[in-house]
Amino acid sequence: MTAERPIEPDELEPLATGAWILGAGGGGSPYDGYLNLRELYRGGTRIRLIDPMALADDDLIAVVSTMGAPLVGQERLTDPRLSIKPVLALQDYLGVKFRAVMAVEIGGGNGLEPMLVAATLDIPVVDADAMGRAFPEAQMTSFAIHGLKMVPMAVGDIRGNAVVVTEAENPKWVERMSRAVCTVLGSTAPTAKAPRTGREVKDCAILYSVSRAIQLGRTVHEARARHGDPVAAVLESEGGRLMFTGKVHDVDRRTTAGFLRGSARLEGLDGDQGSVFEVDFQNEYLIGRRDGVPIVTVPDIICLMDSETGEAVGTETLRYGQRIRAIALPAPPILATPAGLALVGPRAFNYDIDYRPAFST
Amino acid sequence: MTAERPIEPDELEPLATGAWILGAGGGGSPYDGYLNLRELYRGGTRIRLIDPMALADDDLIAVVSTMGAPLVGQERLTDPRLSIKPVLALQDYLGVKFRAVMAVEIGGGNGLEPMLVAATLDIPVVDADAMGRAFPEAQMTSFAIHGLKMVPMAVGDIRGNAVVVTEAENPKWVERMSRAVCTVLGSTAPTAKAPRTGREVKDCAILYSVSRAIQLGRTVHEARARHGDPVAAVLESEGGRLMFTGKVHDVDRRTTAGFLRGSARLEGLDGDQGSVFEVDFQNEYLIGRRDGVPIVTVPDIICLMDSETGEAVGTETLRYGQRIRAIALPAPPILATPAGLALVGPRAFNYDIDYRPAFST
Repeated sequence: MTAERPIEPDELEPLATGAWILGAGGGGSPYDGYLNLRELYRGGTRIRLIDPMALADDDLIAVVSTMGAPLVGQERLTDPRLSIKPVLALQDYLGVKFRAVMAVEIGGGNGLEPMLVAATLDIPVVDADAMGRAFPEAQMTSFAIHGLKMVPMAVGDIRGNAVVVTEAENPKWVERMSRAVCTVLGSTAPTAKAPRTGREVKDCAILYSVSRAIQLGRTVHEARARHGDPVAAVLESEGGRLMFTGKVHDVDRRTTAGFLRGSARLEGLDGDQGSVFEVDFQNEYLIGRRDGVPIVTVPDIICLMDSETGEAVGTETLRYGQRIRAIALPAPPILATPAGLALVGPRAFNYDIDYRPAFST
Repeated sequence: MTAERPIEPDELEPLATGAWILGAGGGGSPYDGYLNLRELYRGGTRIRLIDPMALADDDLIAVVSTMGAPLVGQERLTDPRLSIKPVLALQDYLGVKFRAVMAVEIGGGNGLEPMLVAATLDIPVVDADAMGRAFPEAQMTSFAIHGLKMVPMAVGDIRGNAVVVTEAENPKWVERMSRAVCTVLGSTAPTAKAPRTGREVKDCAILYSVSRAIQLGRTVHEARARHGDPVAAVLESEGGRLMFTGKVHDVDRRTTAGFLRGSARLEGLDGDQGSVFEVDFQNEYLIGRRDGVPIVTVPDIICLMDSETGEAVGTETLRYGQRIRAIALPAPPILATPAGLALVGPRAFNYDIDYRPAFST
């Protein structure tokens, strides 16, 4: 790509579709962010996407996401004025202007969050994120895996409230403190994580993940347009793997301590008739078990898709009777390194099992 | 007093005793802070006390306290290095140096907290506070009653963590957000509230409350020295009122959401034989009922004292069998104004009763 290009109007919907798939069930539904963006585009706004390699080493980049429980995010909607609040709090704290903005996580609505900030502040969005998917906790980033400092970070809200975490013993404490604030603010809140320099983005981010999301969404939309099989198209284009085909039989879901936690049980259809697939989630799908045996785990991207449309099904929209194909997509390689697994592997979620790659690498 | 004078070594113990009485059961035991101060004084430190009226209008004053549940404060001890953490975080945030430091609340260990900060930063302590006693919540101050802004405020901890609340919809939100952080940090944390100018201190603080605490403590110690009745001496010198004499029969106490909450039941002795006194607390004693009828309420300073020694008994040290005299001391008049009662009266603690002055004024 050239150093900077506009995101075209016909890329917005593929971006939303692709981000939702990469969300692994989390990151919040991108629908609301998509409607915001479409409205902005109707008003003449064009978001610019900048190649991370075109950033100067000392550019300072805002890193944004909405934190909280996805189910609550459905009730309290985001908009550009809300999204910029923690960014402005950090600019104020640091006495700087950000050169560009990027997503913490490309997955779900959080993949679109930087577009809302970019539109208001008139800065470009960096074609990168820090997860290559979505994860529930603030410290689960490629920046933390590289040992970068996770402060200062800011939390805002729909009222006149803002908090800056200025110092932290370690990345996990950033998560704990900001989650406590997020929870008291109503279990959903826009955040601006520790800003990154251009050098840090180039060295430590997951590069070109916005483009990956748009491409993934295009694959789905094109398959739909030709009445093909969107799920099969995704598996082929992304090198993914079909893990289970079934129908949602039971969902156990609770919003607690700022997260959406629970599990779902699918009864097999087609080739999986007679088998059961259970999937646990903490905002995102974490572990999938077939007849009691773990067959797919974080950090592989576990995605539950509507069998017909290929639309991702989030942990907050999962409901009885849906026909689902559960697939696994490869995660960015850094997440599966020992340093990566320490932060985002099954044990980081208190499971007493090792990462079980769904892909032979 | 002259503009600035040293606090003498023989004033430290009276300060601790007096602050503990003014704490109304809360503010945390001053014993730990007293030991810290005595140690500092042995090393040659002398804390300077500055007359609030000697402050320049544009002096900037740090306002400190330890936030949290007193029972936890007994387990995790304070020290000067800990106390200065949020003060340094605010200095860093604002890019200023504080001219002096004062207590949010003169009551309990929090009355001694500014001395620990003063010793380390080598600045004087202002002879004033913002409550004239102790209260459980951050917004319950004379500054809030005067409508002053309660941000920025900082929370620190024993690790490398610090949070700055930079914006707040209203004072109650400062309390909510900082309490959430305090709770996740372990239900006790040093804080630096919104700094005040010299002008604001002169206009809106409770003046000369450090001197009041020292004087009150002296009254107790002198009565003890002459084998007199310390409680009676306090009642006489402070214009207080004896509310009940009895023995602790039952204590219901729980540390929850960053507070120590509960109630105690005293069975009457001497003139109160046959009666029962029940007192509710949220860190501080809030409401006292004699045989079911409220006879004393916040903001009057409800103090449970050891009947013999006149030592205050905190809500965290109250235990079965103690012989207690419950007294009421007059609170600063501003707390009993309509604006004051809205923030610190019984209804501010969700009691469906009006303030019932223990003193005819």
